[in-house]
Amino acid sequence: MKDRDTRLHEAITGIHRNIPTYDPVCADDMALIEDHVDIVLQEVGVEFRGDPDAVSLWKNAGADVRGECVRFDKGMLRSIVQSTTPKSFTQHARNPARSVSIGGNGVVFAPAYGAPFVRDEERGRRYGTIEDFENFVKLACVSPWLHHSGGTVCEPVDLPVNKRHLDMVYAHLRHSDKPFMGSVTSAERAEDSIAMARMVFGAEFVDRNCVIMGNINVNSPLTYDAAMSGALRAYARANQCPVVVPFVLAGATGPVSSAGALILSLAEALAGVALGQLERPGSPAIFGNFLTTTTLRTGAPTFGMPEPFVSSLAAGQFARSLGVPLRCSGGFTSSKVPDAQAAHETTMSFLTAVLSGANFVLHTAGWLESALVMSYEKFVQDLDAAGSMHTLLAGLDLSANGFALDALREVAPGTHFFGCAHTLENYRTAFYEPEVADTDAFEIWLENGERTASERATRRWKEMLAAHSVASLDPAVDEELHAFMEKRKEELPDLWH
Amino acid sequence: MKDRDTRLHEAITGIHRNIPTYDPVCADDMALIEDHVDIVLQEVGVEFRGDPDAVSLWKNAGADVRGECVRFDKGMLRSIVQSTTPKSFTQHARNPARSVSIGGNGVVFAPAYGAPFVRDEERGRRYGTIEDFENFVKLACVSPWLHHSGGTVCEPVDLPVNKRHLDMVYAHLRHSDKPFMGSVTSAERAEDSIAMARMVFGAEFVDRNCVIMGNINVNSPLTYDAAMSGALRAYARANQCPVVVPFVLAGATGPVSSAGALILSLAEALAGVALGQLERPGSPAIFGNFLTTTTLRTGAPTFGMPEPFVSSLAAGQFARSLGVPLRCSGGFTSSKVPDAQAAHETTMSFLTAVLSGANFVLHTAGWLESALVMSYEKFVQDLDAAGSMHTLLAGLDLSANGFALDALREVAPGTHFFGCAHTLENYRTAFYEPEVADTDAFEIWLENGERTASERATRRWKEMLAAHSVASLDPAVDEELHAFMEKRKEELPDLWH
Repeated sequence: MKDRDTRLHEAITGIHRNIPTYDPVCADDMALIEDHVDIVLQEVGVEFRGDPDAVSLWKNAGADVRGECVRFDKGMLRSIVQSTTPKSFTQHARNPARSVSIGGNGVVFAPAYGAPFVRDEERGRRYGTIEDFENFVKLACVSPWLHHSGGTVCEPVDLPVNKRHLDMVYAHLRHSDKPFMGSVTSAERAEDSIAMARMVFGAEFVDRNCVIMGNINVNSPLTYDAAMSGALRAYARANQCPVVVPFVLAGATGPVSSAGALILSLAEALAGVALGQLERPGSPAIFGNFLTTTTLRTGAPTFGMPEPFVSSLAAGQFARSLGVPLRCSGGFTSSKVPDAQAAHETTMSFLTAVLSGANFVLHTAGWLESALVMSYEKFVQDLDAAGSMHTLLAGLDLSANGFALDALREVAPGTHFFGCAHTLENYRTAFYEPEVADTDAFEIWLENGERTASERATRRWKEMLAAHSVASLDPAVDEELHAFMEKRKEELPDLWH
Repeated sequence: MKDRDTRLHEAITGIHRNIPTYDPVCADDMALIEDHVDIVLQEVGVEFRGDPDAVSLWKNAGADVRGECVRFDKGMLRSIVQSTTPKSFTQHARNPARSVSIGGNGVVFAPAYGAPFVRDEERGRRYGTIEDFENFVKLACVSPWLHHSGGTVCEPVDLPVNKRHLDMVYAHLRHSDKPFMGSVTSAERAEDSIAMARMVFGAEFVDRNCVIMGNINVNSPLTYDAAMSGALRAYARANQCPVVVPFVLAGATGPVSSAGALILSLAEALAGVALGQLERPGSPAIFGNFLTTTTLRTGAPTFGMPEPFVSSLAAGQFARSLGVPLRCSGGFTSSKVPDAQAAHETTMSFLTAVLSGANFVLHTAGWLESALVMSYEKFVQDLDAAGSMHTLLAGLDLSANGFALDALREVAPGTHFFGCAHTLENYRTAFYEPEVADTDAFEIWLENGERTASERATRRWKEMLAAHSVASLDPAVDEELHAFMEKRKEELPDLWH
């Protein structure tokens, strides 16, 4: 029973998954799925729009190129991906104690990504600002249950759209010592992000090691626009990690049926990871998915629904057959507030991600309203779930102490284990203790003001924000970063759309 | 997209699980676990207090009996259980279309059990009454996602404690046509429950078929009191189904470590199921568990925590190795209100139950506050989750229609699937649609009053209650039931504790 405040700032650098993944699809069915992936790649192909360099790479690799549409022989992409993609790699943090291992049995949790709005119980829903952005970086920094600072933790809408990537990357570097993600909205912004990472880690180190990731969303179905393929290649060229994420909403950007959505997602992810390997063989990559559904009445996306459950697990099986690290999503919900709906949908998607063997779980904390909102209260509620997964993934302790035969011999039938020697020896570390959940008796809860989880969460995120502190950047590096940002901001006009 | 009200009353008689169970424990470790179960049974044994008939059965079976403590040779209980317990059986409902199959790949959901309090958003928390009891029976009756009427859906505290079982059994028979559970608080009350079932189903039919279950809670650790073993034997003797449920709260009624809690639970469940087989070989039984944790600071139980995750899955593996049906629990939470904490903890335990291969999931809907409260709003929120599990357990459709190759060929890269032929052919049944969850856009949610899930739930349970109707009992049977209840109520004094 650690004190909640001494637990903040603990350096937990990912989880070693100690239980097997859940693989519900048999080998024959996995082969059938891959046959269909191959048919899509061979007959329909993938378009790379406005990126002639990408098309050239495909031509040189022997793909069937017609204009911007690229088709692939059976097995070609698997072969490219398997031959050079690292099975695992380290993403280095500026604090080496925070570096994380991506791949194998490693599991890394990162906060939610991409919301233009933020929400808290006191101020309600509003556009995100750079101050909110920094707050979420700080919250992720102090939590022991997030191993990664994430990327666009919210959109700082108060900054020009073509310059805000500089401030976002700086915020990760300045206010956190955990690994992070850079910009992907254009190749140029990806280059800027990598340039800033080079100032902190050194150019040579960066050329040999992963220090930054970029989350590449495919323009599903079967399209990479120049921004995405350009950013993907920029990360790969610099030996940094593109996280390739087909954006498949069944019924909208993908087929309405789960198997159809799955084969589309696998085809697109294969193409993206393979493109990174053509750009720079051996560069790190993560094979991602974002399998979800829609309300066909309104066209609105839905999250945490049952349909993507088995298909996400199958995507995990596929990634392991390739031998590449896997990304899934943790905190999915379409709920507008951090209520029971939000928690149910989040737990459904989070458990799916964790059981699918995801090595990198994005959207672990904060997500609300189909990614439109980053919520302060949801953030700390989700941290309870993230902490819980640490214990769940540790599996069953089958040591003599775990079996507790002595306790079973000591405690008389019909009595209790509260005071037995085994309990006294183990009680401090026996159970995971969530921070926001209230396990007190009704009467105590009543005395404490009858607060719901989200009401209790407000106090918690404020405590955490107040507890934030992190080692400063080297002053010379900080100066270099500022000079670069100023120069870039001068070079670029202010764009707001 | 079925209309929410036409969906009520659908006869869905359980789920056929179409995905494999999640079995994270390897064969060697399962053997190690069973070795430890055998040590507990051999060295410590199980006490049967105040039930000399039970002790006689054990003596005759060759167990090592010393007073009320019974010890078992290695493998003895497995052998008894395996030799005669049915692998699966049908529990008949008074409406044959509602009968359920228990065992194999069947999955049956039943509401929560045992709360002395009820809660709704308008009237708050209060003692349960027979009116509340009837309401929950009606809600379970009309929901397509519950296949079973449950047992003590709440305690009708307004009725004498020694007579209320008569009114509870009558309420299940009168207000529902789904299968149900009878009293277990004494052998006599179990007999009364079975006697009433005989009036509805006929004595001969009942002797050959299961029409009623009794939920037998073990007085963990390692003790059956006379009420529990007496009720267990009463059900078995009548060829009805005892659900044997060790009540293992790690740190309180069991060891603080998960493996220790697990072996205790397995040992107790083996003893209970075996006792039923000694009482009447071949009678149906369910092998249950209730593995949870405690807050050691206060001694309060905690639910939906990560520790019982793998141990519950291992209990499923063990039950399948015995070849007996399995019971787990769905809706665990210690939260006082149907908030985010409640939903997270519920979803954790519900998914665990479902993935462990549970054939009978108790506590699927309504549970709050560590089983002290049955909540109207939580009940309908939980039905959303129960409905979702129907789709999840159906698995992936790998037919040609599931793979949707034609849609992938038809829809141009970068466009969308909203209007394609495959979507138009499938949209009506493509996705599970929850009732309480709100997937609308923010602006519509705002217009609709910014309601949380639990606020929306109030309207839903009232709609459902208003929609309740069920075929009447045969008037002659109804008269017989009333005459029996009156006679029993006259014979017994009113007891309130």
